[in-house]
Amino acid sequence: MTHYRPQSFEVKGGPQWGRDHLPLLRAKLAEAGLDGFLIPHEDEYNNEYLPDCAERLAWATGFTGSAGAAVVLTDRAAVFVDGRYTVQGREQVDQSLFSLEDLTGAGVSGWLAKNAVAGSRIGYDARLHSPDALDRLKQGAKKAGAELVPVEINPIDAAWEDRPAPPAAMLQPHPSQFTGEDHAAKRTRIGEAVAEDGADAAAITAPASIAWLFNLRGGDVMRSPLPLGAAIIRKDGTATLFVNPEKVTDEVRSHLGNEVALRRESEFEAGLNELSGSKVSVDPSSASAWVFDTLHAADAEIVRRRDPVALPKAMKNEVELKGAAAAHVRDGGALVRFLHWLDTVAQSGEVDEITAAQKLAAFRGEIAELRDISFDTISGFGANGALPHYRVSEASNLMLSPGSLYLVDSGGQYPDGTTDVTRTVPIGEPTAEMRERFTLVLKGHIQLALARFPDGTNGGQLDVLARLPLYMAGLDYGHGTGHGVGSFLGVHEGPQRIAKAGSDEPLKPGMICSNEPGYYKEGEYGIRIENLIYVTEPAKIEGGEIEMMGFENLTWAPIHKALIDVSMLTPQECAWLDDYHAGVREHILPLVDGTPVGEWLIRACDPVCGATP
Amino acid sequence: MTHYRPQSFEVKGGPQWGRDHLPLLRAKLAEAGLDGFLIPHEDEYNNEYLPDCAERLAWATGFTGSAGAAVVLTDRAAVFVDGRYTVQGREQVDQSLFSLEDLTGAGVSGWLAKNAVAGSRIGYDARLHSPDALDRLKQGAKKAGAELVPVEINPIDAAWEDRPAPPAAMLQPHPSQFTGEDHAAKRTRIGEAVAEDGADAAAITAPASIAWLFNLRGGDVMRSPLPLGAAIIRKDGTATLFVNPEKVTDEVRSHLGNEVALRRESEFEAGLNELSGSKVSVDPSSASAWVFDTLHAADAEIVRRRDPVALPKAMKNEVELKGAAAAHVRDGGALVRFLHWLDTVAQSGEVDEITAAQKLAAFRGEIAELRDISFDTISGFGANGALPHYRVSEASNLMLSPGSLYLVDSGGQYPDGTTDVTRTVPIGEPTAEMRERFTLVLKGHIQLALARFPDGTNGGQLDVLARLPLYMAGLDYGHGTGHGVGSFLGVHEGPQRIAKAGSDEPLKPGMICSNEPGYYKEGEYGIRIENLIYVTEPAKIEGGEIEMMGFENLTWAPIHKALIDVSMLTPQECAWLDDYHAGVREHILPLVDGTPVGEWLIRACDPVCGATP
Repeated sequence: MTHYRPQSFEVKGGPQWGRDHLPLLRAKLAEAGLDGFLIPHEDEYNNEYLPDCAERLAWATGFTGSAGAAVVLTDRAAVFVDGRYTVQGREQVDQSLFSLEDLTGAGVSGWLAKNAVAGSRIGYDARLHSPDALDRLKQGAKKAGAELVPVEINPIDAAWEDRPAPPAAMLQPHPSQFTGEDHAAKRTRIGEAVAEDGADAAAITAPASIAWLFNLRGGDVMRSPLPLGAAIIRKDGTATLFVNPEKVTDEVRSHLGNEVALRRESEFEAGLNELSGSKVSVDPSSASAWVFDTLHAADAEIVRRRDPVALPKAMKNEVELKGAAAAHVRDGGALVRFLHWLDTVAQSGEVDEITAAQKLAAFRGEIAELRDISFDTISGFGANGALPHYRVSEASNLMLSPGSLYLVDSGGQYPDGTTDVTRTVPIGEPTAEMRERFTLVLKGHIQLALARFPDGTNGGQLDVLARLPLYMAGLDYGHGTGHGVGSFLGVHEGPQRIAKAGSDEPLKPGMICSNEPGYYKEGEYGIRIENLIYVTEPAKIEGGEIEMMGFENLTWAPIHKALIDVSMLTPQECAWLDDYHAGVREHILPLVDGTPVGEWLIRACDPVCGATP
Repeated sequence: MTHYRPQSFEVKGGPQWGRDHLPLLRAKLAEAGLDGFLIPHEDEYNNEYLPDCAERLAWATGFTGSAGAAVVLTDRAAVFVDGRYTVQGREQVDQSLFSLEDLTGAGVSGWLAKNAVAGSRIGYDARLHSPDALDRLKQGAKKAGAELVPVEINPIDAAWEDRPAPPAAMLQPHPSQFTGEDHAAKRTRIGEAVAEDGADAAAITAPASIAWLFNLRGGDVMRSPLPLGAAIIRKDGTATLFVNPEKVTDEVRSHLGNEVALRRESEFEAGLNELSGSKVSVDPSSASAWVFDTLHAADAEIVRRRDPVALPKAMKNEVELKGAAAAHVRDGGALVRFLHWLDTVAQSGEVDEITAAQKLAAFRGEIAELRDISFDTISGFGANGALPHYRVSEASNLMLSPGSLYLVDSGGQYPDGTTDVTRTVPIGEPTAEMRERFTLVLKGHIQLALARFPDGTNGGQLDVLARLPLYMAGLDYGHGTGHGVGSFLGVHEGPQRIAKAGSDEPLKPGMICSNEPGYYKEGEYGIRIENLIYVTEPAKIEGGEIEMMGFENLTWAPIHKALIDVSMLTPQECAWLDDYHAGVREHILPLVDGTPVGEWLIRACDPVCGATP
């Protein structure tokens, strides 16, 4: 039914991978005359989701988490994970081969300072490290009297015999009916921004920025339609796109026109060398140390600036917002059919997490416009639902049995928009505690959704609104409240963010964010309520003096009323809930009307507060 | 009645000062072979309130605001003010002599880049600039091809004929009954903190830090009992205090004991030179460029660290908190007598802002323990109340006439605590708009007061709680929500802060903060409700998992009920208000019982919501 690669529930990684591969890697290091090697999780494109050929950390160590690092020396090795992955690290890493270390705090650099041997030469692949991270690692090695040396060929790639080929999905033009702005106009304004940054050109390496800038989509990475490659845009708006020619059709050539030169990706180095003597804007948070080193060697003047595409890409235009709304209605139809199924069939106690994820994928798969799911579905029952970043596998798969909660976080990729939604539903009868805590999470969700705020406000300032009801009850959740979302692009994108830390980017009209407070009772159950919302233009409030921004809702799916203690809601919160459900009914009922799902939806959307005050 | 210097309502500064003094300054510059001079507002101690001898910016330009700067060149000069002081700058500065420029944005550095003459030599007094600010100024001058050169003798001090003598108030030991910790214990733990920072010694230049560290108070600065001087503390806890010997009594000598050497303030330079070869912790946000230059020249290794006293001083111990509570009750008695007077006598329309400020000072002056007011009282009626930083003078003085609001922000210095409180009261009948907006401000005040939050939370994360009710109505206020307050020290102290920006210091138990949201209708009236609160220890909440901190109230004075629209309060907010007024009655009624003030207070504290829910 689906034409994308379905979610895999196989158990991947594990101690045997490290046992099999560590000796192969050490042999290659010895051949190359190296005393060690640094292995970050990141790939050449600083991707969140890696193509199979870039799963180097997993290959070498067996650890498959989405963040981490390793160092391999001749007589010892270490895997570094953060607090989310301590348990998984212990399960997947053979601790007779690798010590397990904390990625945060002193991290890899601190470990090098204590463990590297004086006089030793430890290799690194400059394409896989940001310049700032690499500087910290160099300082750590230097403290131990060791030296970090760049390698030409990654010894993992040399040692990895059955390494998958790099992805080579065909590029597709992404038409203006979805983007609302042709790439000539985008290039003109990005060129102007490059000039404003005091640069002659910008080296763009983030795949999502390349996709947005040239109105192209690709298929090189799971779940995000990213084209892997690189680009240079000059201040006059002309550009060079470095991609492998086998990905480029005549249609793409014609779409790009004659202001965009096409070169092989392997010629990116030559392209950077040709910038000798120019001022080149590069973003140290997305471009690798290799890009900086290459420009430096070419005598280009490096201007450290944020990727000029990052902010324009985040501020969706009217066409993109209209597309997002349409994609969300479509996606909501599938989700509502799934929620109905959960509320009926899945109450039997005979359905498991994998079956549920597959059922949801099947409902989404019936939508003609679906191109992929936007990330592997989080399908967690009971204690598994209490792991915010849970991915079900055949080893962890639980039955949905009466007496606990099921949490499902999922989304779809459509040409007009990317969705991301979480709902929590009871299997059997919820306890009073579950209802109380669900309602606290709901109150936080509503408070953030209702907030109005002046221009200049950032997500770090609003985050507390979603947490306060939980704080007042002595509770909290260990993740951010909201992340940016792309337009048929990454389901996680910056620069905006709603969280306790690292969220000082002002919210701007058109930015799409998630609103996803939660609560996790370790070993018992998890709760999360996630809608996507977007920032509205500043608008006058009657009687007010300052135009205020706010949020408009995108996601339409019922919030399960059996989990809501209405007596805990303020009249304003109750009115929001009834209005929201009226919106769900209005948008989704036409897709399921006259069916049992439609009848169920009407009941699920009944108001709970009577007349709104 | 008062034994401190009473508030002056004289008009100070103004264009004539600049006309009189600019030529004198330019003559001294010519003698010294300089083409210009930089004039910051700050003094040698980075004080907020300056001793008269340090009012160099006012002397040279006529501008008396609490923040600003000037540059004098041979053919032009400029005064730099921020948005708060644009109007005042226009009134006080002769614009035929000085251009008026924006202190923020490119600021003085940007102006130098455009206006300094290539090859010119512009003087600065390194004792009056922070090293980072000076670096920015040097870069600006460099862009113009000009050079900044340090001066030995400040040319303003040379030109200023009747310059007041530097203050020389006697030092007083501050006994342990108020501090809760003797200075030997303080020196031991600060010495340990210096060692933890990797330093051998710390140079302490902030007067409040010196006062706290040695349990000394002085009288060199208006409104804050600060001793001006400097200190060096070594990691073993021994210290040298550099103060002028005429300020030191035998009692102080005995109090300091033999682990604290006493030297003249003029020997601080020698003391820094003696640190040659040592690692010295210095705080670039409080110590001047001169301290850095001197240490650098002495071949000391500079360790840039926050003043090690800043955080311990901010986290008040139990004795200090108990003292603060007692000082606030005492102060509340005077304030309640004043509020009664405002609600009766001052309703006549025959009282002005100065009379009101003097009346309040008289009530405070009857308290035996009062040492000073903690800042010049903000006594603003109608349009003057709409200026958040208003200081009444004979020129601005308005009558309190029926139909608008009177705002009074004031405080006292007591040996056991420093107070700071703002109340807004109606003169005559308030309008519906005034009541609505007052109630919005009150709702924000209450939401912040009620907040519970986990360890690690900072004021920047909580600020929105105080603003949200205003935001929802399209309103805001142009100042921070809360500042730190000292213990018989500065009424403004860091590092904590509750504001939109620059507030990333985590709140810690014992920190005293103001809670002072407001609303200002330009040209009409101002509203502010300010209590001091302190951060409580993390404590378990029934049914919760995480211990939460919160705030405990210190300030007791009625919030005027004629300004509250009770229908706008939630049940929880109304309960807070009634509880708060019950607290006011409990704490203050004993001081005024059996008098007309007592009868008035009982009525002012009557509950408005009936039984609390």
